[in-house]
Amino acid sequence: MTFRSFEIKRYKNGIVERALDSIAAEEPLAIRLLHWRKDSRHAENLAVTMRTPGADKELAIGLLLTEGVIQNASDIVEVRSIGTDPSNEVLVELARSVDFDEWRQRRNGFVSSSCGVCGKASVEQIAQAVPQTAATEWRVNAEFMEALPAILDTHQPTFHQTGGVHAAALVSLDGQLVSLFEDIGRHNALDKVMGASTLAGLLPLNRHVVFMSSRSSFELIQKAAMAGVQMLASVGGPSSLAVETARTLGITLVSFVRERRFNVYSGDWRLNLQR
Amino acid sequence: MTFRSFEIKRYKNGIVERALDSIAAEEPLAIRLLHWRKDSRHAENLAVTMRTPGADKELAIGLLLTEGVIQNASDIVEVRSIGTDPSNEVLVELARSVDFDEWRQRRNGFVSSSCGVCGKASVEQIAQAVPQTAATEWRVNAEFMEALPAILDTHQPTFHQTGGVHAAALVSLDGQLVSLFEDIGRHNALDKVMGASTLAGLLPLNRHVVFMSSRSSFELIQKAAMAGVQMLASVGGPSSLAVETARTLGITLVSFVRERRFNVYSGDWRLNLQR
Repeated sequence: MTFRSFEIKRYKNGIVERALDSIAAEEPLAIRLLHWRKDSRHAENLAVTMRTPGADKELAIGLLLTEGVIQNASDIVEVRSIGTDPSNEVLVELARSVDFDEWRQRRNGFVSSSCGVCGKASVEQIAQAVPQTAATEWRVNAEFMEALPAILDTHQPTFHQTGGVHAAALVSLDGQLVSLFEDIGRHNALDKVMGASTLAGLLPLNRHVVFMSSRSSFELIQKAAMAGVQMLASVGGPSSLAVETARTLGITLVSFVRERRFNVYSGDWRLNLQR
Repeated sequence: MTFRSFEIKRYKNGIVERALDSIAAEEPLAIRLLHWRKDSRHAENLAVTMRTPGADKELAIGLLLTEGVIQNASDIVEVRSIGTDPSNEVLVELARSVDFDEWRQRRNGFVSSSCGVCGKASVEQIAQAVPQTAATEWRVNAEFMEALPAILDTHQPTFHQTGGVHAAALVSLDGQLVSLFEDIGRHNALDKVMGASTLAGLLPLNRHVVFMSSRSSFELIQKAAMAGVQMLASVGGPSSLAVETARTLGITLVSFVRERRFNVYSGDWRLNLQR
């Protein structure tokens, strides 16, 4: 399944309706290796990467190729999905000729998005890792939401220059821009907001809204949660794991915030949408 | 500087002109730590992350916060940019109360995009790591380029369902779709194409074009190069480091491929744009 369906609230021009929404699936894939060291086989957990399920074997082999572990198909003895169904694990057995230990030594800077997360249970593990912040009772209204896109439009100099960067904005509950940072990586843009807030002594950010120009992935929810953020809004859509994580952590998640529309994926009690 | 200017060729409706184009800057940032272990300070290279320069100190502090190394500003003694100007290194000195070793043990799955790359010299190091593939002499024409968007439109089921995923397509020189994969991560979508090509015995991919629905970053160029790809096209724009890497590796890079327009950022000899 490459997408998931969620019950959401859809706001458009002052009208709210319940809807079923299809969201791109995002789940962790663990890539495990069997490789040879002298005369014996060794098992290794290579990486955990967040991906949309489907073509998992191709993804694992492609990652091994593009990271320089293998050069062609003859370097692979077997590749198969393992574990429960639906599987979030792939096992790759390397040919005896592949010197994985040498590769690891050569590439100590392996490009990995290893998040240590694997499967539903671990969203709860994240919930435990998140610092407890005081529950706050505030709500925002539809006018607040409708005003968000203009904040980005007004304060994104690099985007207007290049069209190729993301922005993360910290907005106070009265709709004022507190800080905004741009970066080619949306996680970097958010980290910059978090860093600036830390240095400014603003933590926890439990009375602010974070607004992203990008889609909202699992990683953004996780990062926001670490700073005590209780509401994240984005221009783009969420991933399935972002929705699940936001719901588990009690974070309000609003996406597709454009013109006078938005979808509420989690925590709709924080929005006062009456007219 | 959050953007860079490059001389490019701009194609629109059969007309080609030279232009100066502004591109979002992408450069590696090395985050270095000073932390305490018993009674002595230790230096540590925490991560290398690809980012748009600017607010580097905020980015470093934000990453430490969102990864759970620090909890607030009192955990930081000092943060400063180090090295040459413009600097691509930040040094963070942690307070004595921060137990970095304990954190590392707890979080062996640190979310890092450590690519081991730092600065201009290293683009040449990547060039050395890329397998040598036979130089090929083919060109494509404007009709080939104009037909690319329709290939994605026709073959992206999840995108039409959710609007939230990227696609990577492998296209033969006669304009036929060889394979297409979708994923919430563009690097995953490309890795899936690479893995499928490896398993199908298609390597090196030096007589195919890779077409991405996304922007084109450094990481995509690097991944494509590992499979011998000599031309990458994308719907979105490139980063500065993507352009520089493509030029260093001799890879043709075409971006903003939409309707009957595109920009050629590298390797224009591979495009026959005469009418």
